[in-house]
Formats: sequence, structure tokens, C-alpha cells
Amino acid sequence: MCTVFMQEMTWQDFNERKDGAIAILPVGSTEQHGPMLPLSVDSIISTGLAEMIAKKVNGIVAPCVTYGYKSAPLSGGGPIFPGTIDMNGVTLIDLIKDILEELIRDGIKKIFIMNGHYENEAFILEAMDLVSREHEDVTMIESSWWDVISDAVMKKVFDEVDYPGIELEHAGILETSLTLYFRPDLCHMDRFVEDGVEGTLGYNIYPASKCEVTETGLLTTARTSTGEKGKLLADDITEAYVKIMKKRF
Amino acid sequence: MCTVFMQEMTWQDFNERKDGAIAILPVGSTEQHGPMLPLSVDSIISTGLAEMIAKKVNGIVAPCVTYGYKSAPLSGGGPIFPGTIDMNGVTLIDLIKDILEELIRDGIKKIFIMNGHYENEAFILEAMDLVSREHEDVTMIESSWWDVISDAVMKKVFDEVDYPGIELEHAGILETSLTLYFRPDLCHMDRFVEDGVEGTLGYNIYPASKCEVTETGLLTTARTSTGEKGKLLADDITEAYVKIMKKRF
Amino acid sequence: MCTVFMQEMTWQDFNERKDGAIAILPVGSTEQHGPMLPLSVDSIISTGLAEMIAKKVNGIVAPCVTYGYKSAPLSGGGPIFPGTIDMNGVTLIDLIKDILEELIRDGIKKIFIMNGHYENEAFILEAMDLVSREHEDVTMIESSWWDVISDAVMKKVFDEVDYPGIELEHAGILETSLTLYFRPDLCHMDRFVEDGVEGTLGYNIYPASKCEVTETGLLTTARTSTGEKGKLLADDITEAYVKIMKKRF
Amino acid sequence: MCTVFMQEMTWQDFNERKDGAIAILPVGSTEQHGPMLPLSVDSIISTGLAEMIAKKVNGIVAPCVTYGYKSAPLSGGGPIFPGTIDMNGVTLIDLIKDILEELIRDGIKKIFIMNGHYENEAFILEAMDLVSREHEDVTMIESSWWDVISDAVMKKVFDEVDYPGIELEHAGILETSLTLYFRPDLCHMDRFVEDGVEGTLGYNIYPASKCEVTETGLLTTARTSTGEKGKLLADDITEAYVKIMKKRF
Amino acid sequence: MCTVFMQEMTWQDFNERKDGAIAILPVGSTEQHGPMLPLSVDSIISTGLAEMIAKKVNGIVAPCVTYGYKSAPLSGGGPIFPGTIDMNGVTLIDLIKDILEELIRDGIKKIFIMNGHYENEAFILEAMDLVSREHEDVTMIESSWWDVISDAVMKKVFDEVDYPGIELEHAGILETSLTLYFRPDLCHMDRFVEDGVEGTLGYNIYPASKCEVTETGLLTTARTSTGEKGKLLADDITEAYVKIMKKRF
Amino acid sequence: MCTVFMQEMTWQDFNERKDGAIAILPVGSTEQHGPMLPLSVDSIISTGLAEMIAKKVNGIVAPCVTYGYKSAPLSGGGPIFPGTIDMNGVTLIDLIKDILEELIRDGIKKIFIMNGHYENEAFILEAMDLVSREHEDVTMIESSWWDVISDAVMKKVFDEVDYPGIELEHAGILETSLTLYFRPDLCHMDRFVEDGVEGTLGYNIYPASKCEVTETGLLTTARTSTGEKGKLLADDITEAYVKIMKKRF
Repeated sequence: MCTVFMQEMTWQDFNERKDGAIAILPVGSTEQHGPMLPLSVDSIISTGLAEMIAKKVNGIVAPCVTYGYKSAPLSGGGPIFPGTIDMNGVTLIDLIKDILEELIRDGIKKIFIMNGHYENEAFILEAMDLVSREHEDVTMIESSWWDVISDAVMKKVFDEVDYPGIELEHAGILETSLTLYFRPDLCHMDRFVEDGVEGTLGYNIYPASKCEVTETGLLTTARTSTGEKGKLLADDITEAYVKIMKKRF
Repeated sequence: MCTVFMQEMTWQDFNERKDGAIAILPVGSTEQHGPMLPLSVDSIISTGLAEMIAKKVNGIVAPCVTYGYKSAPLSGGGPIFPGTIDMNGVTLIDLIKDILEELIRDGIKKIFIMNGHYENEAFILEAMDLVSREHEDVTMIESSWWDVISDAVMKKVFDEVDYPGIELEHAGILETSLTLYFRPDLCHMDRFVEDGVEGTLGYNIYPASKCEVTETGLLTTARTSTGEKGKLLADDITEAYVKIMKKRF
Repeated sequence: MCTVFMQEMTWQDFNERKDGAIAILPVGSTEQHGPMLPLSVDSIISTGLAEMIAKKVNGIVAPCVTYGYKSAPLSGGGPIFPGTIDMNGVTLIDLIKDILEELIRDGIKKIFIMNGHYENEAFILEAMDLVSREHEDVTMIESSWWDVISDAVMKKVFDEVDYPGIELEHAGILETSLTLYFRPDLCHMDRFVEDGVEGTLGYNIYPASKCEVTETGLLTTARTSTGEKGKLLADDITEAYVKIMKKRF
Repeated sequence: MCTVFMQEMTWQDFNERKDGAIAILPVGSTEQHGPMLPLSVDSIISTGLAEMIAKKVNGIVAPCVTYGYKSAPLSGGGPIFPGTIDMNGVTLIDLIKDILEELIRDGIKKIFIMNGHYENEAFILEAMDLVSREHEDVTMIESSWWDVISDAVMKKVFDEVDYPGIELEHAGILETSLTLYFRPDLCHMDRFVEDGVEGTLGYNIYPASKCEVTETGLLTTARTSTGEKGKLLADDITEAYVKIMKKRF
Repeated sequence: MCTVFMQEMTWQDFNERKDGAIAILPVGSTEQHGPMLPLSVDSIISTGLAEMIAKKVNGIVAPCVTYGYKSAPLSGGGPIFPGTIDMNGVTLIDLIKDILEELIRDGIKKIFIMNGHYENEAFILEAMDLVSREHEDVTMIESSWWDVISDAVMKKVFDEVDYPGIELEHAGILETSLTLYFRPDLCHMDRFVEDGVEGTLGYNIYPASKCEVTETGLLTTARTSTGEKGKLLADDITEAYVKIMKKRF
Repeated sequence: MCTVFMQEMTWQDFNERKDGAIAILPVGSTEQHGPMLPLSVDSIISTGLAEMIAKKVNGIVAPCVTYGYKSAPLSGGGPIFPGTIDMNGVTLIDLIKDILEELIRDGIKKIFIMNGHYENEAFILEAMDLVSREHEDVTMIESSWWDVISDAVMKKVFDEVDYPGIELEHAGILETSLTLYFRPDLCHMDRFVEDGVEGTLGYNIYPASKCEVTETGLLTTARTSTGEKGKLLADDITEAYVKIMKKRF
């Protein structure tokens, strides 16, 4: 079977497949994910899920946006960790806007944005809103993958550990399991340490300081993460999105 | 006792009070809040709370930002309701940025942004980050008031009705009670109807359509809202912020 | 009779009244106005006049823009006085543009911008021009209130003192009388001192220095200001605008 | 004697003269000026005056900005006349800002902007303010030439005709006389007609329509304009600016 | 015969000629051109050629854009030479965009941009692309004059000296000969020295340093430049563009 | 040996390696490359070369920028081919600027941008210039890989076919050989056809039309391309850059 990745297609491949197709744009980040996961976790997961979904709905996966919005201390560790590369809000808005407009210029009518980085969402939605005003005949959906996990799977995944809430679930069991599933070669579970913060603050403070977070960059534990849980999650999320797409596109 | 509102001060009043003072900037919106509440609910609440806090810490309340970021269908009803006035992301970023920079130029070293509109937050934080890079000696805190309500008060407020989560808590018991407390003259509880959506979708879809929300603009029930609950909330929130300010400024 | 203030309306109130209505947007500033007047003089006057006009012409008063363009030394005292909060030009253009576009999206076809701050005008007009190019079916009028005062009233108001020209008429008899009329509670006439500059320079110089202006921030005298003169002015201005609106809308 | 025009200098000429020199930047427009004057009147006059001044004060005249801000109906005829080329506000701000910053990077410490187009001023000042914040050691002055004409000369120039005020003095006696002085070859006084509007409106209306202005584009009469009056004005204005520069630089 | 320069026309002159006319916009720079040529070489040549072409096709020459994009060390000497005034990319994009849009608003359907500064091109094309998307019925052509010189003429011009390639042909034989032809009064051939760099680097380095270039600013020799060669070039280039315009407009 | 790809590193890996390291940023595009090559050719080659270089010079390869500037008809086929995704100039400037600033914030002092898409260059340089003004202690080099190929290798590569010049060398022998070397699995040489344009036009025309280019998107022949030639090129280019880096960093 032919590739679902746009970057692997020739323009004629793309041309033949584009009519009626759903363009799926993964949006990740380059951001610290603790001592055991690579900087590209958000890109790996959003791309991995995009591929799985694309294979089930006539999907074409556009190249992943690998530089995302600024990491916040209590949802990603923040700007202080080396390796975290933070885009300004306007940059991300413009980048997503241009990509959407170009996909539409190429004849795409259904676009799905698969977000893998918590802090991206508001800026992605701003871009979508601006594009949508000019292209009312195009249907665009955005979702962050953690927003559609079923209760059943959540229970299985958080079998020993309690779910800390999505803000703190950074390099936690969800992301670690999914990275173990998609790219086990990039995970260093031997470097894993038990670490985390006590909870969210209820406020944001500037300038950011490392005292808000841990030395390791971990906000919660990843203990009990496995590739099997990753597969469970990936299948569950894929199924949810396929259902949504069938309903809305 | 003298006013805490900057707009009521002469420049000399402001000058005498500004050293060591905490500037508090309320950020609201102009957005539908169902059939019984005025378009300015978010501005009323953030300004009302700002005033209460300012009286307890050496605070100066700057004029409220009354035009906020775009209302999202499932957290504010969205752009389809007449009367909702949505700013673009860049506009809000620039506006907050300019205000912060000018307060700092006037010698302010401690700034608190009291957010009253869910969708504003990412753009306020972007402005703060940009300003903070140039002014590392200034401490700035941002918080949305619903993020610091104590569990004890939440229990009292949601005595009959279950808390639907903050996204859907639009024109719900929290906002209605607080508006009943701050501006009962602008509440039309006789027009209240029981209405609401079933839950969040887990995704965002463009173009927005009214089918995602209700005819009334209500996402959840405001039943059991009272001014007394509003006072309870206002006192609780004020106390929380006073504690945070004492710790961080 | 029902409120004319949009922020006091529910979305349904606004919806019922909006067809054929004139949206009136007051644009003020947060700027020093000498030792006896509050920082919000420009917002108070433009809002006060907007309300009077709205009551006579099926008008809806949108929330006042309370942060205006940069104060110039010889028309407002300039940036050096604490309490003056200066927006950048681009910020004000975008803010006004977004508000106009949203009012138009809500079905408004007639918009009146009531400017109360001399330095705002060029940036408001830029926003209007940009919006007008996309919405040729919408009629938009902008005016600064001092541009329509009748000669007869000017003579009565400047009975003892000579009119210094509009640039220097900052916290002078016009603004002081109107503030005494609309918000006497915020005027401290006991702090009034006789002060002023000799005239305009004929040029603008950067960086701004306090030597161009007075210690008090006053550019001209406010002596002989009274609330009665304020009422006289307010009635005269209101009448002028009602006439203009009847002719042009 | 050597040229004062920067564009006629080699980089070494400029280099030798720049220390301590006053850079003079003329800002004009491309705008209708009635049936008898060329589209470049504002550029011709500001450049002509800049040259005269430069010769008296170690001045270097930078290339004229020949595209200016949008013409307003009642101060320049507006956008409806073919040949009027209107820049957006942001464009003019950025253009002036970049020129100022580059002159400063080249070691210039004294800059004079000679404005020849009424509508430019607010945007020039915005650029100057933004640059001045970063370069507090540079002194920058801006002035529109009509703001420094002496009363004595005004009386001689308006010997038969009454001065209509600066807004309407578009292609009137001041501009026509100065153009007759600087570039008589481009004036077609045989095409002159007596035409004009009754006065300013006191408000701005969008969309612009030709009914606000005259068929010819003239807002006031240019009758009695002569090159001699032009010389009288040019000498007077030059003297005024030389005095200002001696005082402030 | 009547002028081809828009700035010398009245609005009525322009109006009578504009239908079916080709608007020609010269875009130059203010940039060092060695010890013997003025800072405005790029503007002089692009304007001179524009005039020649305009006389052969029904052309109208718009005012030259005299401030261009940033000079690069190895194609113009770079930012280090005093007198070089570098615009930011966004500024040039916006400026060209506004001019194009205004020419189109005036009814122009054929636009030719005559570029005289190597570094301008990408930003001019960006402006054209943005405008073209909104105005598909307008044909716009851009060209740098060195791109159309015939081989025959190149051979005659480079009779003794070898052509160094266009990047290094800065203040070389092409530009010097053309300036000698158009404005011999501004050329100081007595100051000419033999100087130049060895070749291009194959890369760009920041920050720029004077070591990449020569002390004089010359990148190649101008020896054997003459006004006669200038005329030869100008005629050849004019002929090429007239042919292109006849084919494409 | 450890990875050179930043996205495969944990933040601690990056942290340990970053001091003294050269950050290498590949910038590619998503653009048609004829019937036999994938849309990501420019990203594949710039990333492939970046990896080779990084292994020789303590380099860290940042995630590739996979969306580049607008494809031009005669250097990339232009916007008409489906699958070509064109960023606006401002978007690319901002994106590169943010990435550079973040690498610098992380302590990087040496940055190399490896450009793989002809049309990107001016916008990358603009970003570098803007960043360089604020960070004069950081050395940044940009180069397009085709600018450093040795004459010896060029002769070997163009053994049968003549080199058409870099503008037309789109999906030609250079790009095809390098893609055959780096990602043979994505090349469909069986779909190769002999096709091409006659030469460059000497001008750019808008709106773009398919008549300027070929049906296939090929501008020149790729005949005689092989993976061996690709290796020869890659080794040659790598060697050239290693030499440049040793000299300049």
C-alpha cells in the first residue's frame, strides 16, 4: 500500500489522491520531556497517530510542524531547559495559517489538525479562525489527542498511578507509553527517575524560574509506562478520531 | 478612603501611590452570557474582584480591558451570538503588551492580571512573556479567578448542581452568582431558562455553527445561583489572591 | 427606558435593538489631565456624550476604548507624567479595526466613533479606512467632539478667558466643564492652579522632556470652568451630532 | 560648493560630512493638487525647503519619501482622484522608522524631518517615538512647514484672499506659490480655475465620496499665487527652521 | 512631447493617459557605489531606463523607490559603509505592495517593475505575489535590468575586462557606464581606483565585517567604463523590455 | 556513537553537548520535484548533508524547516503544481528568527543554516540580519549547498549533460543524484521523462501560469543521475563546509 505521508509522495501521487482526501497536519514541538524521552515527543506522537488515522480514512499526512509554541513551566517545564525551542505566538499563527491556505489552494476541503503540544492550541485555533473566515466551504477540525481517550482506556493506563490532569501529564504515563510504542529506540527508560511537582499553582508567574518545576523537568511520574499501554492508547485515539471524521467530514 | 481605580485618580494621586504598589489589570470581554446576564459579565467580575483585592494589598486597578479574545462555541457560545465582540489574537497580545510596558515605564514593578474570560489566557501570557524578556526585574502574575476557588467553597456553591468543569461553566452558577453579587441591577433572573449542552466535544470545528451550542447561549445551568454565593466566591477568591501576592511579590 | 449601553444589555437585548441602530463607539484615553481632573477625562466625556446622543437616535453605545494613542507633550502633557498609558499606533489601529469588523459582523450598518482624545484621530481613521474598503455598504463617521461646538456656545464658554486653540485645550475650560458636568465627584477643583504654556512650538521634538510642558501638566487655564458650561457644551455637541447623523445615516 | 543632497554624494563624501551634520529628511506624497499643479507638490516643497535649510546649517538632505499617507477628502481631495497614491499607516511608520535607524547607525545624532503632507504627521511621529525609545542620545525634530510661517509673511501672502486654515490650504496660495518658486516649469497656471469647498465638515465619513470635494480637487482658491510669494515664504520658513535648529540641536 | 514622469503630471494629465498605459515603477536603493559613484546609482539607472522605455510604450513612470533592501557585503558592500541606508524586508514588501495596490485602484492593468538593486528582488516578488492573488486581472512583470542584456552587447562592453558575474558587478563596468550615460555630472572618475574582491564566498556570514569587502567598497573593476558603453547598454536593455512588454501585456 | 539529531536527544543529551557545538539548521521545502522525486527533496538533501557535516564538526542538527518560501515558476515550478506548499515571506522570516533566537538563548554561539531551496535564501538572510543585530557575539553562516560544489566534482557530475545553471537545476542531476543517495526508496526513476524549459525568461510575471513551465514540473533533464554521483556530491559539499566552519567558527 502506498505511503500516507505527503513528503514521500511525488506531486502526481498527491494530485491523484487529494480529491476528497482528508489532510492531516500533525503539530508538535521541540521541548524537554525529562531525562528519558527525546525533545521531539510531541512531534513523534502527533505524527504517529496521524499516520494510523490516515490509513483508515482517505488521509494524507502533511509534514509535521516540529517547532511549537512556548513551553509553560507547569505544563512543559518552560523555557529554562536547554533544548526547548519556543516559537512566538504570531509565528505559529502565521505558519499554521499559511499551511492551511496552501492546502486549500491545492483543492483540499477537509483538514484535520492533530495537536500534540498542550500550549499550541490557542494559536492553532486563531489560525484556523482566520482561514475559515475566507474559506467557509472548507471543514477544519482540531483536536489534542488526550481529549478523546475513552474512560475505559484511561482506567487501564492509570492502573497503579492516579491521573494527574492533563496540564501535569507532561512526560507522564500517556506520553511515555505512546513514545515507547512509536519510537522505543529513542526512549531511555534506564534514566527514568521518580519526580514531579505537587500540583498546578493556579496562576502563571513571570519571569519563569526553575523553582516552579523539578530539576529533571518531570512534572509527574511516568512509572508503569509501557509500549503496550502506548498501543492501547494509540488504537483508542485512532478509533475516536475516525468516528469523529466520519461524522463531521 | 481613597479610590483604588486608576481612572478615578489624578496623575498626582497615581504618582503618590505607585511606588511599591501592585497594579491590577482586569481583562474581560464583550460576550453573550445567556438570556439573563449582560454582555459585560467577564469585565464586571474581573473588575469587581480586582477592586476587592486592591483594597487589601496596596493595589491600583487599571482600566479593564473590555474587549477580549474570540469566544469559542463550547466555552462561550462562539461568534454567532450578536453582541459578542471578538478581538484577533494579535490585537489582544499587542494591547496587553502596550499596557504592561507603560505601567512599567511609570515605575510599577509588580503587576497582577486578573483574567475573567477563559479564551483570553494564552494571548495574555504571550504578551507577558514578550514584556518579561525585556523587563526581568518586574514580577508579573496572571490568573483566571476560577483557578483559585477553594474546594470548601466549591462544595457550598455546587450544593445542588454538579460542577460541569470550567469550559462549560459559562453563564453558569459561578458567573451568575458573582454577577448577582457585583451588579444585581444588570441581572434578569426572570429570563433564566434551564438549558445547556451535553458536554464538550473533544475537538474544535470550523466554521462554527450554532448546532454546537444552545439557542439561548447557555452551556450549563445557572440554577441555584444567588448573590450570597457570589459573595462567598468573591471573598474566597480575594483571600486566595492576597495570599499569592504576599508570597510572590 | 431601557439602557443604551451595550455592556448592560443581554445578547437578546442587543439583538432586538441592533437592526437599523447606530453603534456609537467612544474612544478615550488614560492620560494626565492636571492636578484636578482624573486620568479618564477623555473616556468620561466621550462616553457621556455618546450616551446623550444614543438616547436621541436609536443608538447603542459600545464599551469605551479606554487606552488611547500616545499623549503628545503639547497636546496632552506627553509620556513623562505617571499615569499616562500610551498605546502604540499599530495597537490602536488593530483594536479599532477589530471592533468595527465585529460590529459589522453582527449586522450593524451605521457606526459613529466619538473621539475624546486629540492624538487618537489619525489611527482611528486608518482603521476605518481599512475596514471601509472591505465593507462599502457600511457608513462610518468619526468626529472629535470639539470640532462641532457652535460659535454661539464657544462665546458663552470662553466669556472671560480666550480660547487657546484645540491643541492646548487640554484640561482647559472645555474638558474641565464637561467633566464637572458628567462626573463632578471625580473633579478636585480645590487643587486647581493657574498654569499653562506660552503656545505651541510649531515642531515636535524627541526625546520628550518635561521642559516643554508645565510641572502640573496643564497647558492652559481652566479658570471659569463650571458644570453649567459643561451642560451647555454637552447639549450643543449632542444637537450637532444628531443633525449630522440624520443627514448622513 | 558641494551638494547637500545625499543621493548625489559618494559614500566617502557622506562619510566626511556626516559628523555633527544635521540629516534632513523631506517627506512628501504623490497626491492630486488640482488642475494646475503636479502630483509631487508635497515632495517638491519639502525637498526645496530642505535644500535651502541644509545650505545654512551643515545639513545633509536624505532622499525624499515620495509616497505619503492616505489623502483625506477635506485636506487633500482623498483617494478618489486618479494619481493619488496612498500608503497604509503601518507602511509609512515602518519606512520612516527604518530610515531613521539607518541614519543613526551611520553616526547621525541630529535629524530633522521636513513634512510636506498634512496627513503624514501622526505616522511620522509614531516612527520617531519608536526610534527615540531605543536611541535617547539622538535628537529628532519634526515639523510641517506651514507651522512656522511668520505672521508678517502670512499677511503679505494673504493680501487679497483670506487664509482658509491649513486643512483646506491644499493647492491653495501657500502650496501654489511655493511650487511656482521651486518648479515653475511644472505649474500650469493657465489651467487654474476658481474652485473650492465651503469649509470643513467637522467629521470624517467613510466610504469617501466625491461629493465632499470639488470636481477639480481644489479645496480653496490659489488666486494671487506667485513665485515671489513663494520666495517670501521659503525664505521665511528657512529662517524659522534655522533658528529652531540652532536652539535645539 | 509630454512628460512620462507621473510626479510631473497633474492628476488630470495622469487620468487622461492612464487607460491602457503601462505603469513603470523603478526601484533603486541608497547604497555605497565606491569612491567615484553617487549613493543613488541604482535609482538613477532604474529611473533612466524606465524613462527610455516609457517613451516607447505608452508608459507612465511612477516615482522611484529610492530606499531599497539591505545591501549584502558581497553584492553591494554591506551595511558597514556610511551612506548605505538599508530597509527591512517587511518594510520593502509593504511599500511595494501599497504602491501596486494604489496603481491598480487607479485603474492601471499593466505594471512593470524595473529593479536596479540586486538585493531587492525577493521582496519585490513577495509583494507582487500578495497583490496578484487579489487582482488576477492585472499583469505585472518584474525584471532586473542586467538580466536582459544581449550577448552581443555584453561582448562589446566587456572588451578588455572579463565579466565577473552579476553579484560582484557592483559599481563595475555596467553600473559605471550607465551612470556615466545618465548622470555624468555625478560621476567622479578621477577618484576611481582599481580594486576588488577575489570572488564570492559561497556563503553568507553574520555579523558582517569589513574584511569580506575592500576598503573602497568596490567589488570589481570599473576600468574601461564609458558613457558610450552606457548608451549601448541602455539602448539594448530598452529594446529588450519593449519586446517583452509587447509580448506579455 | 551518539545521534547528531537534536530531536532524538533528551534535553540532558543536548545540554551536555551544546557548549562549543555548532547548531546546524536545515531549511527545505515542500515542493514539486517532477514525476520521479518526492515533495520533500529539499528537506531530504539539506538534512542529509547536515547530518554528514555534524558528524565531522561537533554539530547538532536542529529539526528541519520543512515548509519553505514560495516556489517560483522558473526555479521550482511555481504555485500551480499540487503539493507545493508556499509560505509567505514574513512567516519564514519569523520562523527562522525565532529558531535562531531560541538556539542562542540555549547558549549556542555558532549556527550554520544549510539551505536546500533556492527561493528561501533572501528570507533566511533577513532573519539572520535581524537576529545578528541583537546578538553580535554569535557567528551565523548560511549557505545553499550548490554554492560550494568544487569544479572537479561538477565536471564529473555533468559528464554527459551540460549544467543548465542553478535556477533551472530543479529536480535536475544534482538534486536527483543526491536524493538517490540519501533516500533511494523515495525515487521513482521509472517515471522519469526527458523534459525541460528552454531557459530562464529574464523576468518574473504575475499571475503565474503553467505555460512558463512544463507539464511535468521538470525544468531540465535529470538524465545520468545516479546515487554514486550523489555520494560524490555529498562528500564534496561536506568537505567544503567543514573547511569553511573550521575557518570561520
